[in-house]
Amino acid sequence: MPAAAALIRVIFGDTDQMGVVYYANYLRWFEAARGELLRANGRSYGEWERAGLSLPVVEAHVRYRRPARYEDLVRIDAIVEEVKAASFRFTYKVTRVEGAGAGDLLAEGWTVHACIDREGRPLRLPPEMKRLLEDPAGV
Amino acid sequence: MPAAAALIRVIFGDTDQMGVVYYANYLRWFEAARGELLRANGRSYGEWERAGLSLPVVEAHVRYRRPARYEDLVRIDAIVEEVKAASFRFTYKVTRVEGAGAGDLLAEGWTVHACIDREGRPLRLPPEMKRLLEDPAGV
Amino acid sequence: MPAAAALIRVIFGDTDQMGVVYYANYLRWFEAARGELLRANGRSYGEWERAGLSLPVVEAHVRYRRPARYEDLVRIDAIVEEVKAASFRFTYKVTRVEGAGAGDLLAEGWTVHACIDREGRPLRLPPEMKRLLEDPAGV
Amino acid sequence: MPAAAALIRVIFGDTDQMGVVYYANYLRWFEAARGELLRANGRSYGEWERAGLSLPVVEAHVRYRRPARYEDLVRIDAIVEEVKAASFRFTYKVTRVEGAGAGDLLAEGWTVHACIDREGRPLRLPPEMKRLLEDPAGV
Repeated sequence: MPAAAALIRVIFGDTDQMGVVYYANYLRWFEAARGELLRANGRSYGEWERAGLSLPVVEAHVRYRRPARYEDLVRIDAIVEEVKAASFRFTYKVTRVEGAGAGDLLAEGWTVHACIDREGRPLRLPPEMKRLLEDPAGV
Repeated sequence: MPAAAALIRVIFGDTDQMGVVYYANYLRWFEAARGELLRANGRSYGEWERAGLSLPVVEAHVRYRRPARYEDLVRIDAIVEEVKAASFRFTYKVTRVEGAGAGDLLAEGWTVHACIDREGRPLRLPPEMKRLLEDPAGV
Repeated sequence: MPAAAALIRVIFGDTDQMGVVYYANYLRWFEAARGELLRANGRSYGEWERAGLSLPVVEAHVRYRRPARYEDLVRIDAIVEEVKAASFRFTYKVTRVEGAGAGDLLAEGWTVHACIDREGRPLRLPPEMKRLLEDPAGV
Repeated sequence: MPAAAALIRVIFGDTDQMGVVYYANYLRWFEAARGELLRANGRSYGEWERAGLSLPVVEAHVRYRRPARYEDLVRIDAIVEEVKAASFRFTYKVTRVEGAGAGDLLAEGWTVHACIDREGRPLRLPPEMKRLLEDPAGV
């Protein structure tokens, strides 16, 4: 699956009174990045959902390395790892893009997703998605 | 309709790098207060929704008076005003509850809500809700 | 002051259980747009702050026209209006950019900003900023 | 350190279009709970900060068990674990409080915190805080 990234300009609303991006907002950024990744690979998450498939997060992890700050332009890269029968893992890297500290790794993390149908029952990953997720060279 | 209020303890996640509560979060607080108001008057908003009624916000206004800060305990009061055939208005007051500056008015505002059915069509306010909204002495 | 706009891809974290963007998040988008506007006009808000100037929001208003939805690409345009001695107003338009409904106006609003110094005292707009704000043809 | 908990009523602003609480918001709830824990143990986090001590999150983890939904009243319990020379860990449990499913475990997680001074340098935990954190029987 070809890589993809989200670009975000940090606003006041992302920061807290420590003057850095609030720690929960990295999970928002992770979501933006995995959305771009699916979109770049042929089917957006919304299209998967309309096809009857949901991929709820069952576990999330973040390792904060350096603070992101107001007006930073950050890039969030997502890749797919550990594709199992009914779940898989996205991993993420957040880096600063511009200015002093460009290229700095700000945070890393991962999320594990189950695959469920419209009624919330566990579902094996459909072959099309499995192929997509497993093929790092692209489809 | 008897008054009701929400109590909120400000966390880091509510603040921004100015050291004050981020301005968008007052709209979250307004929602918490109108939820408490409906709940205190016999039917929660979720119960109104299950009965087929939605009350989307069509207009919102906030006047910021004094900043709310980290660890402040704030109280948000909501009352109902201007009940029309298919819309009405909530007004809000946010006050600090504890410590230096207890009783200070931090913000005021209002939201106008339409009344729509499950298909998103405008709906006249059902008599039960109209009665509830119009009776400031309680039902 | 030349116009500028922010582009945002709606994520799950922006929506609520009505399946539309939560009403408070438009104020986040307004902030992103006015940040782009200042940045496009020579000095970012962060640079103004480092020069000793803050522009806190004293009033905010939103008129919701049509819902923004998950995966919508929205554009938020900001312009400056009503430049007074120590305050001014930004106005905003949110439009959908892509797909069915491209060009639809989703919301409009405005924010009034005071101008204060590092100690929080009201400050007359510095000539450089006043000139910038008043000149729609650009500086 | 005596236990403490935060109580939160879920609002629309916490949910996403899946009809459940958005996954990032659990980190907000964790923060609310650890704030209550410190407050219940003699010194709020704000007071620790005014004394020159910050406790930034360096790692965060969430395991999502069952979804929290609109209008749920949830309780977030925090306890302290793994007190080291210059860092420690909070662990959290989120449970539903009322109605059908009362007592259900909704999520678990932990955060690791460093201890730094005003200049951002690593700091050994002050004896007063170390004693507080290590004594589960209370001080």
